Amino acid sequence: MSKKVNEIGITVKKDEDFSEWFTQLMKKAELADVRYNLKGFPVYMPWAVRSIRKITRMWEEELEARGHEPLLMPLLIPESNFHKEADHVEGFTPEVFWVTHGGDKEFEERLALRPTSETALYDMYGKWIQTYRDLPFKRYQSVSVFRHETKMTRPFMRTREIHWTESHNVFATEEEAYKDAVENLEITEKLLYGKLAIPHIFFKRPQWDKFPGAINTFAADVLLDSGKVLQLPSSHMISQAFSKAFDVTYKDADEQEKLAWITCYGPAHSRNYGALITFHGDDKGLVLPWDVAPEHIVIVPLIFKGKEDVVLEKATEIKKQLVDAGYTVRLDDRDNFSPGYKFNEWEMKGMPIRIVVGPKDIENNQVELFRRDLGTKEFVPLSDLQKTVDSIRDSFTDNLRDKADKIIADKTVDGKTEREIIAALDSGKMIRTCFCSTDLDGEACATKVEKELGGEVRGEKFNTKEELFCDCPICGKKANHVVYIAKSH
Amino acid sequence: MSKKVNEIGITVKKDEDFSEWFTQLMKKAELADVRYNLKGFPVYMPWAVRSIRKITRMWEEELEARGHEPLLMPLLIPESNFHKEADHVEGFTPEVFWVTHGGDKEFEERLALRPTSETALYDMYGKWIQTYRDLPFKRYQSVSVFRHETKMTRPFMRTREIHWTESHNVFATEEEAYKDAVENLEITEKLLYGKLAIPHIFFKRPQWDKFPGAINTFAADVLLDSGKVLQLPSSHMISQAFSKAFDVTYKDADEQEKLAWITCYGPAHSRNYGALITFHGDDKGLVLPWDVAPEHIVIVPLIFKGKEDVVLEKATEIKKQLVDAGYTVRLDDRDNFSPGYKFNEWEMKGMPIRIVVGPKDIENNQVELFRRDLGTKEFVPLSDLQKTVDSIRDSFTDNLRDKADKIIADKTVDGKTEREIIAALDSGKMIRTCFCSTDLDGEACATKVEKELGGEVRGEKFNTKEELFCDCPICGKKANHVVYIAKSH
Repeated sequence: MSKKVNEIGITVKKDEDFSEWFTQLMKKAELADVRYNLKGFPVYMPWAVRSIRKITRMWEEELEARGHEPLLMPLLIPESNFHKEADHVEGFTPEVFWVTHGGDKEFEERLALRPTSETALYDMYGKWIQTYRDLPFKRYQSVSVFRHETKMTRPFMRTREIHWTESHNVFATEEEAYKDAVENLEITEKLLYGKLAIPHIFFKRPQWDKFPGAINTFAADVLLDSGKVLQLPSSHMISQAFSKAFDVTYKDADEQEKLAWITCYGPAHSRNYGALITFHGDDKGLVLPWDVAPEHIVIVPLIFKGKEDVVLEKATEIKKQLVDAGYTVRLDDRDNFSPGYKFNEWEMKGMPIRIVVGPKDIENNQVELFRRDLGTKEFVPLSDLQKTVDSIRDSFTDNLRDKADKIIADKTVDGKTEREIIAALDSGKMIRTCFCSTDLDGEACATKVEKELGGEVRGEKFNTKEELFCDCPICGKKANHVVYIAKSH
Repeated sequence: MSKKVNEIGITVKKDEDFSEWFTQLMKKAELADVRYNLKGFPVYMPWAVRSIRKITRMWEEELEARGHEPLLMPLLIPESNFHKEADHVEGFTPEVFWVTHGGDKEFEERLALRPTSETALYDMYGKWIQTYRDLPFKRYQSVSVFRHETKMTRPFMRTREIHWTESHNVFATEEEAYKDAVENLEITEKLLYGKLAIPHIFFKRPQWDKFPGAINTFAADVLLDSGKVLQLPSSHMISQAFSKAFDVTYKDADEQEKLAWITCYGPAHSRNYGALITFHGDDKGLVLPWDVAPEHIVIVPLIFKGKEDVVLEKATEIKKQLVDAGYTVRLDDRDNFSPGYKFNEWEMKGMPIRIVVGPKDIENNQVELFRRDLGTKEFVPLSDLQKTVDSIRDSFTDNLRDKADKIIADKTVDGKTEREIIAALDSGKMIRTCFCSTDLDGEACATKVEKELGGEVRGEKFNTKEELFCDCPICGKKANHVVYIAKSH
């Protein structure tokens, strides 16, 4: 048995070999299996799927509370739809999966697996939206999207199939559309930071780094242990070229036909999950925020010969009490594994609370309780158990968030010169600096940052005016924007 | 306003022109839009999606309560996986959608959009399942599947993209696998009949009508108003040729390596929804079983000049009371539609309960309450309102089921001769008869039934022994099975 206990742990340290740590975590916490015979398409296992489902529902509930309704668009999009908007077709076709045959029949027109649904949905919006009374019009769907990534893939983080929610919303005015982007920022803050405990910055991307067919792109970036940023939910102000291409117009109160304004918002839940397990995970395995954990409490009975019944009976009684109080509880009474093996397994899987009950504990009217956020153990009198669990529930995600905030605080620094930027990038940090321009004028400096400094200009803080504190460190000209630079995934 | 009121109704009777009734229902209840520019791929609208989501979760919860866990398999399946099992490839490839390119790059091997996931999943099962301790192994996923149907398509009922749950389960013995098929019958009964109120028969299909690669197929058939049966959830005993092809073996307690037994079960939720709206719908529109309705109660305030505030205030108060009691309630206070328009709209959408509040009602401390299952109206004292709503909730689905049972009872008849079978088929009925054989020996008679009588042998009742009452009406030989014949969709 002892061999198995040793086998289950991760054999490298997260901060020493992140890539190997991640690979072992996938396997040992049973999250994803990369042995499916198609590159970039991992199989997602129950423990991960149950968390991704919780994350998806969080976003769905939040969107519905704000007036978005669910629909389901077909997976397949005729190629001609893509050609209606020039920037979009240019941006996406290099990574589209194309369906060419149904059975033996070759189609006259190729069909795309949706890389995102603008070109399918807006065609319908053109049919559905007639007058100003139809606006605002807010719809979303939770589906998979497909992108033939050429970069190296990794489960959850970068894959060719992405599980996401996409919301697409139509407004009468640019002002209302912008307000919607601000609302998307609020949703991201509330869920990504509040529930998933992931510190992030919501950026307005520079003009050279927009979603194909948008006039502005806003996106949440999180800086990971790898020293690179990962893009999480993004929101786009779709250009009116789209409304024109798909005839998304409305008759206004003044009887005039007008082009509508469209926004979209795309939280990718499989990627959010990848970010959170990376961010919170430690050398012992997963650490999951409370509302993301598939289950909350595991009870491990310590079975001694002759005392089996009394221990199992007490464990069952405790389970019932906690289930009645609304908790998801597992009684791990498998007889072919040792308690030590079980302890390691549930730490690996990020079970928030472990309760151990043995004959001694029963005599003393207590249990041993371990909490995964702080890694601490204590004896709890049975009479206090529920109160203790309630209090752990209420502080669990806050603890993870505080820890995350501290890590991030040290990792964002100001830089005024190329040398400072290079030094910060080398030590895995994000740099706040001033920049000549985030319009296309600034693209030359950004290219230099990428090619010579090895970083990427991620943009300005969205909806926040920050004070200038230096000239552009690249061209030396007067700076007009405060931007952030980091290595990217 | 009156013009709109008239416009909203369905202009044909369901039992006179079913096809036109269905088309108008799609549009007027806002369930599906067939104007998307790809045949067989309708867009599903919020009111339908919210019900399909409820149906999906019903099945998921039931499966999880019985030990099935969720996973997510990739959409794409390499062609070589299909070729591992000969019957399966022959059965499915004629209707597979093939992906051939990613961007400009042509793949060396074509990739299938999953028509069903056996050939993807069992390849993983072969890797995951090692010993008898791993069994039973029960997994499911809720995803879309794709079949290039050549028959005429219709939203929900027959489409090229199907939203379903597929459960795939591995057992040590044939006996356990068969028990699982029985369990699938129980789930189908509990949900399809209990919650969706759809009377159906769970058949064991004849040997000539099995799922490609199965040794037995069991499936629920429902007889619709069209006089044709529609196949709803099916369950298959997968042949051990599959276990062999994908190496799904386990080391038994006796140290011997053995081939596992596999079952699968596939409730198609979009199709279940199609069946239920067809079955329960009437000339005024949708009628939805209680647990499928996206919302339960609409409150329509009767606004008269000078009394707006008092009416809206009372309506809001009633809404709050019912929401607090756990109901999903909509206050329809749109000012640009007449009460009559709203009544028709919510009847069309199958809202179970409508509550009308006017100034007179407030004076009398009452509301007018309409229930969609019985089509009756009554005045209810405010003090009795919640009790009345509770009682409607508790009897609503039962009423629909009783009505459905009565319709079906008249539509299944015994037949002993070809002439009786033809007459029954012509009047849209299902015929119970005796048959020479449901093994391949009987296929010639079945072909005659199909070609000359215009019906299809759907199979024997699963897990039920029925007494023989005649010889085979086709060949005149001694019958060995009681089977059912019907026209099929």
